[in-house]
Amino acid sequence: MKAIAIDLGGTNIKAAVVDQDLGIIEQSSTPTHAELGKDHLLDRIAGVIMELSKKEGVVGIGMGLPGMVSIDQTTVYYPPNLPSLDGVNAAEEITKRTKLPCRIENDANIAALGSLHFGVGKNYSHFIMLTLGTGVGGGIIINKELFKGSRGMAGELGHIILDYHGPLSNSVTRGTIEAYLGQRFLSRFAMDMITQHPNNPLYQKFSKDFDKLEPVDLTQAANTGNDLAIEILEKAGQRLGYAIINYTHMMDIRTYVLSGGVAKAGEWLFGPARDIVKKHMMPPFQEGFEIVYEDLGNDSSLLGAAGLAFDSFS
Amino acid sequence: MKAIAIDLGGTNIKAAVVDQDLGIIEQSSTPTHAELGKDHLLDRIAGVIMELSKKEGVVGIGMGLPGMVSIDQTTVYYPPNLPSLDGVNAAEEITKRTKLPCRIENDANIAALGSLHFGVGKNYSHFIMLTLGTGVGGGIIINKELFKGSRGMAGELGHIILDYHGPLSNSVTRGTIEAYLGQRFLSRFAMDMITQHPNNPLYQKFSKDFDKLEPVDLTQAANTGNDLAIEILEKAGQRLGYAIINYTHMMDIRTYVLSGGVAKAGEWLFGPARDIVKKHMMPPFQEGFEIVYEDLGNDSSLLGAAGLAFDSFS
Repeated sequence: MKAIAIDLGGTNIKAAVVDQDLGIIEQSSTPTHAELGKDHLLDRIAGVIMELSKKEGVVGIGMGLPGMVSIDQTTVYYPPNLPSLDGVNAAEEITKRTKLPCRIENDANIAALGSLHFGVGKNYSHFIMLTLGTGVGGGIIINKELFKGSRGMAGELGHIILDYHGPLSNSVTRGTIEAYLGQRFLSRFAMDMITQHPNNPLYQKFSKDFDKLEPVDLTQAANTGNDLAIEILEKAGQRLGYAIINYTHMMDIRTYVLSGGVAKAGEWLFGPARDIVKKHMMPPFQEGFEIVYEDLGNDSSLLGAAGLAFDSFS
Repeated sequence: MKAIAIDLGGTNIKAAVVDQDLGIIEQSSTPTHAELGKDHLLDRIAGVIMELSKKEGVVGIGMGLPGMVSIDQTTVYYPPNLPSLDGVNAAEEITKRTKLPCRIENDANIAALGSLHFGVGKNYSHFIMLTLGTGVGGGIIINKELFKGSRGMAGELGHIILDYHGPLSNSVTRGTIEAYLGQRFLSRFAMDMITQHPNNPLYQKFSKDFDKLEPVDLTQAANTGNDLAIEILEKAGQRLGYAIINYTHMMDIRTYVLSGGVAKAGEWLFGPARDIVKKHMMPPFQEGFEIVYEDLGNDSSLLGAAGLAFDSFS
């Protein structure tokens, strides 16, 4: 069984033919040119698909994109960088042009479907995928299916409050996990800590240009035994722990699949998160609790989009 | 259609025959005597049922009780005040004794089922019931069904963190909504505020014995224009608003059904909650958001237990 996978971003349209067993077997990329408007964009996506779809056994199209997606996985709302698609039934428009069935889903949920079909998520019936990148996003899998809530927008996991008088992130909501673990916010927090320790090697390396400081630098420093880096990642990990407690008390899901650049810190982050969970999560929820790292690399969006098509059309 | 409803508490076993259209048509109550052990307790419950079940058209038994209940609604774990039932398949034991099918569910979820079958919840396919009483509990209804998560314990809504360095409530989790809106915690917070205002009528009324201060006293004072009472309820309402934001960003459910003693404060609480939601909940989730008050009175547990039986056996 194969599917056409599309990863629609503000800059590029990535496309692939994905085989359920073999993974990606053909791939292409073309500029999005969102500024040329809705019809041009849909024609462009359809054109990319038509070039790929000459393979046998293609069941349909799955497309990941930014924004909120309707519960029937056809229509997108508030897509950042793709304003011309707001309120458009993109699935129907693409089917019209390609004669192939199509479903769409937002990037964060697509990542969860990628793990479910091609990653560590294969081993679980229920898990929460948390992507710690520039922003913090996630998707909820229950009984091997994506949980969409009442209207399709469930799982805004980056916007769960941990401290209602805490800092703002990219949202109107204060003190969310994104405001602590989103890459930019974590770097800013690190900068505040580092400026207080002028003798630390991190100060000497980054004080001239703190914009260059990335979470990976903290991980590398922690690996060499830098106490300050360990402390910064520990604080971040503790906040991850509080977020996990909120998700678990709400959904009773015990498996957390972590991915994204910040998650590369691994045990420096997950260890302190586990300690907080052990201490502050209600005892009945502790059984079976685990944090697992996932790295499907750059192809994760295409793999997840293919998973959406397999779930919808097979 | 009728069901046998049981409300099993640490003190009393309440029982009723409930008609789907007419509500409660017969009712009884007997002491629990949990200290006499598991078999005595199960025999006692069965005895109460056998006295009631001679009505025609009884489809089965629904029982509400404190504790965590398995996803198949048969077995209870960690039941406070009923330790002899821990890990017992109570549904099976009762069926053995009565020859009637039986399902059990925890009190908070039972309240949601009561609203779904006999209260304002009838008007909604998706809602979250929040009971603001001694503790804060809740239940989640999606597509007219109780949401139980992966293992049955979902919806511990009183234990959702709003401020991870906040106060403890009855749980190991800090800064939860229960630690702000649970009756005892709200009264304590009110006491702290009132002691700073010795000229306020509330000080004059309660300073000799603050244990007498109940949320209803705050509501009454607010109704007479007491600014301090209004301020106390406003702060509580704001925290309710932050909790609702967390529930909504997670589940995408837009209707909140509020009940319990503290919820009797009504608009003094709901108004500030709505203001916070308007300001800090992500815009796409605002559409259709509402808070509704529910008061099924003392019978709500029996009505909910009957709803469980109707859902399970009709």
